[in-house]
Amino acid sequence: MPDFSNWSCPLPLRDFPNVVMGHGGGGRLSSELIENIFVPAFSNATLTQLADSSVLDRPTGRIAMSTDSFVVRPLFFPGGCIGDLAVNGTVNDLAMSGARPLYLSAGFILEEGLPLSHLAQIVDSMAKAANAAGVTIVTGDTKVVERGHGDGCYINTSGVGIVPDGLSVAPSLVRPGDKIIVSGSIGDHGMAILSLREGLTFETTIRSDCAALHTLVESALAAAASNAIRAMRDPTRGGLAATLHEIAGASDVGIEIDESSLPVRGEVRSACELLGLDPLFVANEGKMIAFVAPEHADAVLAAMRRHPLGAEAVIIGRAVEEHPRSLVAKTAIGALRVVAPPLGEQLPRIC
Amino acid sequence: MPDFSNWSCPLPLRDFPNVVMGHGGGGRLSSELIENIFVPAFSNATLTQLADSSVLDRPTGRIAMSTDSFVVRPLFFPGGCIGDLAVNGTVNDLAMSGARPLYLSAGFILEEGLPLSHLAQIVDSMAKAANAAGVTIVTGDTKVVERGHGDGCYINTSGVGIVPDGLSVAPSLVRPGDKIIVSGSIGDHGMAILSLREGLTFETTIRSDCAALHTLVESALAAAASNAIRAMRDPTRGGLAATLHEIAGASDVGIEIDESSLPVRGEVRSACELLGLDPLFVANEGKMIAFVAPEHADAVLAAMRRHPLGAEAVIIGRAVEEHPRSLVAKTAIGALRVVAPPLGEQLPRIC
Repeated sequence: MPDFSNWSCPLPLRDFPNVVMGHGGGGRLSSELIENIFVPAFSNATLTQLADSSVLDRPTGRIAMSTDSFVVRPLFFPGGCIGDLAVNGTVNDLAMSGARPLYLSAGFILEEGLPLSHLAQIVDSMAKAANAAGVTIVTGDTKVVERGHGDGCYINTSGVGIVPDGLSVAPSLVRPGDKIIVSGSIGDHGMAILSLREGLTFETTIRSDCAALHTLVESALAAAASNAIRAMRDPTRGGLAATLHEIAGASDVGIEIDESSLPVRGEVRSACELLGLDPLFVANEGKMIAFVAPEHADAVLAAMRRHPLGAEAVIIGRAVEEHPRSLVAKTAIGALRVVAPPLGEQLPRIC
Repeated sequence: MPDFSNWSCPLPLRDFPNVVMGHGGGGRLSSELIENIFVPAFSNATLTQLADSSVLDRPTGRIAMSTDSFVVRPLFFPGGCIGDLAVNGTVNDLAMSGARPLYLSAGFILEEGLPLSHLAQIVDSMAKAANAAGVTIVTGDTKVVERGHGDGCYINTSGVGIVPDGLSVAPSLVRPGDKIIVSGSIGDHGMAILSLREGLTFETTIRSDCAALHTLVESALAAAASNAIRAMRDPTRGGLAATLHEIAGASDVGIEIDESSLPVRGEVRSACELLGLDPLFVANEGKMIAFVAPEHADAVLAAMRRHPLGAEAVIIGRAVEEHPRSLVAKTAIGALRVVAPPLGEQLPRIC
C-alpha cells in the first residue's frame, strides 16, 4: 500500500479534502478538479483545450480502437494501482492487434468521499504510465456517485492506435502447427490482488506484473516475416486458459500446452495451492502470448527474450488439427487432461 | 417507465435471470452475455471479430476523440434510458467539435443482480440510437461489481469521428460580436429526470430531449461561410449557464443573453418554479448552442430551423468585449443580472 502521509494534494481544497457530489456537476468544482488534478498530470496541448472532444493529427494507417473499464479492489496493490492498470490495460489491448497506441481517453466514476489525495495519486500513476508508454491522454470525463455506491474509483480508458498497412494479426488467423509463446511467468497479477485481499503473506511479496507491452510486441513483429505472427493476446481475466479457449474458438483449431513448460513463480504457485486455484485461470496484466508460424517461432522467441519484459519467454505449446476448439494440457508425467473454459468469475474484481 | 412484462431476454438463462459476478469474469458466462445480448444488438462485421481492440478503415481527415461515462438514475425515464443517452451523449460531444461521428466503444459496469431483461432493453436502445446516428459500436467491455455497489448499470461510451480538413470549431475561437443561437427549449432533460425522482406530475409529462445532434450540426455548418461558426456546445451538466461560462473563459469574452428570449416549455418552467431551480442551470441532452459570426447568424438560424431538432432555434444573445469571462442576463424588465457559474451539482446523476 502506498504511503499517503507525504502526499500533498494539488487541489485548493475549498474545505473539501474528499470528493463531493459537486465535483461531478459540471460547475466550478468540476473545473477545479480538472484544472488542479487532471490537467497538471496529463498535461498536453490537446487536453488543455478542454473541449468536449479532442481533435487529433491525421494518422497514416488503419485505426485500432479499444475500451476497458477498471473496477479493481483494492485501488492500490503491490506493483501498481488502478491508474497504471487502466493505462497499461488499454495500451496492451491495442498492441495485441498490432497497433501502435497513440491516444487514450480517461473516464472516471468517483465515489463521494474518495480522498482527493488518493485520486491525485491514481492520476499521477496514470500520467507516468502514459508517458512511459508514449501515449497521450487527450480527453476525459468525471462523474460522481453518492457515498456507498461505486467503490472509490472506477476508470474507463479507451484507446486509439494505428495499425501499419499490410499487418494482420487476429485470433482467427491461427493455423494448426503454430507455436505458442508466452512472454513470462503467469498468474502474478491475480495472485498479488488476491493475496492482498486475503491477507496472505509469503517470504516474497507477490507483485502485479502490470506493464505496457507495446514495445515487446514491436520487437516480436520485427523479428518475424510478414504476418508470421498470427495472433497476440494478453491473458487478463480468466487467465491463460480463457485466452487460449477464445483463440481456439475463433480459429477452429485445437490447442495443446505442456504444463511443465509453464513459467509460474514459486510464491504464486504456493498461493495458488493454498487457495486451491489453477494458475492457468489467474489473470495477468503484463504478459502476452503469441501464436507464431513454426518456422519463425525461434526467431520471435529470441527477439522477445532480448526485451526486458520478455526475458523469461518460452514456447508452451502449439495449435493442432485435432480436437478443434478444445484446450488440452500435457501434465508433467505425460498424461493429457482437457482444460475446460472458465464458466465465470474465479477471482472477482482483479482489473 | 418501460413495461418489461413483454420483454423476452435473448440470453439462455442458465437459471440466472439477473447479472451474476461471473458475467464479468472473462469466462463462459461473459461470452454468453456478449454473444446473446451485445453482438445481436450491435451487430457489425468489426465487433463480431471480438478482438481486444477493433481495427477500422483508414479515415481521411483529422481524428476527433471523446469519452463520457453515464450514471443517470433512474436507468429508464420518459424520453429515453441510459442506453440511448450514452450513445447520443458521445455522438453530440464529437459533433460539437465539427466531427462526423463514426465509431463508438461501449464499456459497461454492471451491478450483480441487474435483471438481464433490463440490460437487454438498455442495449437495444443503444443499438437503435447508434443506427439512427449512423455510428458503429466497434468494441466493448463488461465488468460486474457486487450487489450494493454500482447502481444497476454504468456505461462509458467513447467515440471517434473525423473532422473535415480546414474546419476549426472551438470555444477559444469566439469573438466579440458573435451571435449565440440555441437550438430549442432548455431544461427538458434535467427536469424529466428530477420530476420522475421527486414524483412530480404535471398535465404534460416532461420528456427528456435526448437526441443525436450531428445532422443538425451538419445543416448549420453547411449554411455558414467557412469557419463562421466559431464554437458549438451541447449544454449538458450545469446547463446553459455552465456552458456559456466555459466559452467565456476559453475565449476571454463577455457574454450577454436576453432572458425573455430563452425558450423554456411551460411544464419545465412550472417544475423549476416548484423546486426553486433556474432553467439556465438545468441539463439538456438534445440541444446545442452555436456562436456564429454576426453576418452569418441569420442564415445559420434559418438552416437550423429547417431541421426537425432545430425547429425552435432562436438567437439568445451575443459575445461582447465588456466584462470578459462573465455572463450577464438581461431580464424581462430590462435589468441586468450577473449569472454566477454553478459551483457544483444542482441536480446529481442526471447523465
